[in-house]
Amino acid sequence: MIHQIFNNNQLVLASASPRRVRIFQMLGLKFVIKPARIDEAISTDNPRKLVITHATQKAKAVADEFDSSVCVVGADTVVYIDGKILGKPENHQQAITYLQMLSNKKHAVYTGICLVRGKKIVSGWERTYVYFDQLSPADIEDYIATGEPLDKAGAYGIQGYGSQFITKLTGCYFNVMGFPVHLFNQLLKEFS
Amino acid sequence: MIHQIFNNNQLVLASASPRRVRIFQMLGLKFVIKPARIDEAISTDNPRKLVITHATQKAKAVADEFDSSVCVVGADTVVYIDGKILGKPENHQQAITYLQMLSNKKHAVYTGICLVRGKKIVSGWERTYVYFDQLSPADIEDYIATGEPLDKAGAYGIQGYGSQFITKLTGCYFNVMGFPVHLFNQLLKEFS
Repeated sequence: MIHQIFNNNQLVLASASPRRVRIFQMLGLKFVIKPARIDEAISTDNPRKLVITHATQKAKAVADEFDSSVCVVGADTVVYIDGKILGKPENHQQAITYLQMLSNKKHAVYTGICLVRGKKIVSGWERTYVYFDQLSPADIEDYIATGEPLDKAGAYGIQGYGSQFITKLTGCYFNVMGFPVHLFNQLLKEFS
Repeated sequence: MIHQIFNNNQLVLASASPRRVRIFQMLGLKFVIKPARIDEAISTDNPRKLVITHATQKAKAVADEFDSSVCVVGADTVVYIDGKILGKPENHQQAITYLQMLSNKKHAVYTGICLVRGKKIVSGWERTYVYFDQLSPADIEDYIATGEPLDKAGAYGIQGYGSQFITKLTGCYFNVMGFPVHLFNQLLKEFS
């Protein structure tokens, strides 16, 4: 199991996302949090390529600051709908626009994970389909008023008030939270 | 949204499950916890019927202790595989047997929810398919050693160490945690 792989201070999470931190804690991991500062601009219309590129940039940037024996984990998550990639909304109005796009439709969530230890690098991506209920203008305003949408890709959190809008999903749930656990487990097996 | 429906002390959760408590907290609800004591014996081979029956018994038993203006929520969750209903394992050996049954297969999780307020009752059920990775005997022993399987239907928790064994799911994630949020939202709309 994953928590048996790492000793203290041998695992670094290159992300400030409280959701990724919570998943690492849920797995019983001992780890250091060291957020990466990279340019997260959306530079391609291919969501798989984007999340892998950003996850790799994050892991590499942080790995440069650590000893080569440490395993650094980077991740990046986006929402993809109607050929458009949605990152975090920039403001209230963009959150409204994003939630209107998601209402009563299926969308895809992509997360890329990259593991770096010294010169060794592995990466992979995961996709989950999420089905949203119809949202009224009042639902959207009330939801944004909770403060939950603004720091999240696609302007919603599945682990929070947003849960009530989701009718079903197909794929990995933890991917939608921002860190696909089973993919991480697989990558660790390749890595060691 | 759900948290706007109830005033203080108007909602009672008839369950001691820490996972259901966490979901209610996640939804921003103010509620009272009052576990129901009912006989949870598996008295039918129909999982839908079983979870509705138990959820209703729980909600009714607790509603008898409260004023008729209060909304009491009961829930029951089971795992269903190869025509067998799995509740909580009775001991270490049964946890091993259950996890061996789930390994490398798809199973269904059923949750029933029942809402009671005075003489008004509504109920419903949700099914989610969960796909397990292959588990080695060491995986099963190590997982049971974490203590996670013993108080959970089917001997696993999706929100915990168990997450790493799940390759994908189809349906409501929160149903697998023990309380399908979107179904609850729908039942509340019927109820008010």
